[in-house]
Amino acid sequence: MTDRLKKQLEFSLEIDKEKNIFRQTSLSGHGRKENDAEHAWHMAIMAYLLREYSNEPVDIQRVMIMCLIHDIVEIDAGDTYAYDENAIATQKEREDAAKERIFSLLPDDQKAELTALFDEFEKNETAESRFAHSLDNLQPLILNNSNGGSDWTEHGVSAAQIYGRQGKTKQGSIALFEVTDKIIKDNIAKGVIK
Amino acid sequence: MTDRLKKQLEFSLEIDKEKNIFRQTSLSGHGRKENDAEHAWHMAIMAYLLREYSNEPVDIQRVMIMCLIHDIVEIDAGDTYAYDENAIATQKEREDAAKERIFSLLPDDQKAELTALFDEFEKNETAESRFAHSLDNLQPLILNNSNGGSDWTEHGVSAAQIYGRQGKTKQGSIALFEVTDKIIKDNIAKGVIK
Repeated sequence: MTDRLKKQLEFSLEIDKEKNIFRQTSLSGHGRKENDAEHAWHMAIMAYLLREYSNEPVDIQRVMIMCLIHDIVEIDAGDTYAYDENAIATQKEREDAAKERIFSLLPDDQKAELTALFDEFEKNETAESRFAHSLDNLQPLILNNSNGGSDWTEHGVSAAQIYGRQGKTKQGSIALFEVTDKIIKDNIAKGVIK
Repeated sequence: MTDRLKKQLEFSLEIDKEKNIFRQTSLSGHGRKENDAEHAWHMAIMAYLLREYSNEPVDIQRVMIMCLIHDIVEIDAGDTYAYDENAIATQKEREDAAKERIFSLLPDDQKAELTALFDEFEKNETAESRFAHSLDNLQPLILNNSNGGSDWTEHGVSAAQIYGRQGKTKQGSIALFEVTDKIIKDNIAKGVIK
């Protein structure tokens, strides 16, 4: 086996650990919490099926890879809940160290490629990264809505907090933000969101 | 919301159920059993990173989508263990009914597209489907090997059974089959495989 293939397989085994990183979103049917690998799988399929709603034309292959790898750093850094301000303050430092360790398992060219894709997602300045962020928001939203908004009530999240996060969806897809906005307004009307 | 988008979101919510379909493969670190969504996520990333080892040039975007959706039918049909001959006898009938129900949630054009991708994977006659099958085999193999072959010993699987299944890997990638062959031989030498 070449050194290159050995490295690629070591990385492939390492990312298995992402299946043990759990998020704050519950699966539909009032299920258990979702993990990062499942979330990424779901986002990538939704990105593909909903690509016609991107504000700008996107290279959907790049969007899908970005979706699939965007949470790998959480193997070391853990999941940072979108509404946990203390955790958000240290998030970048934790994730940068994780990014360096985990992507360094790959051959140099693939380390550079995946690091660049991860950074592109984080910076949110390209059409692909903006659309990927729309899915990063919409995917948990549809699960939470299907459960009567239980993730919001559990954490006592306010409408201002939700709009603060979900606002990013608009930059990637106005059409998907309209769905988002309707779901939020319905949940405010029902008293689920403060 | 258009009828089209409504259908796309209904399908997106339905496939969340794939996270509850568990396989016979254990996660690395002697973890719990893996589910279909995690398996598909892992396969799609491995397909992308290992695409240079495909025997034939592939459209990697198509391979990735194929990997991501290839187990959706198991939401209704359940997971069929690769070495369970009774379950394999009824697998096609169960999966055909599931395919019709689940993909019919989508708009007609996307139903046709995903059905064709699913069928292409099953028939295993194109470069993309052959390479996707290589990953469908290799991904659980590296997890199982990292756990000392515990999935094989649990089910008392023989070398002939393993080669019967893993032989498909060669059709998609001779290089990845060489890795497979070495792992199997090492586990036979250790007495893990009968």
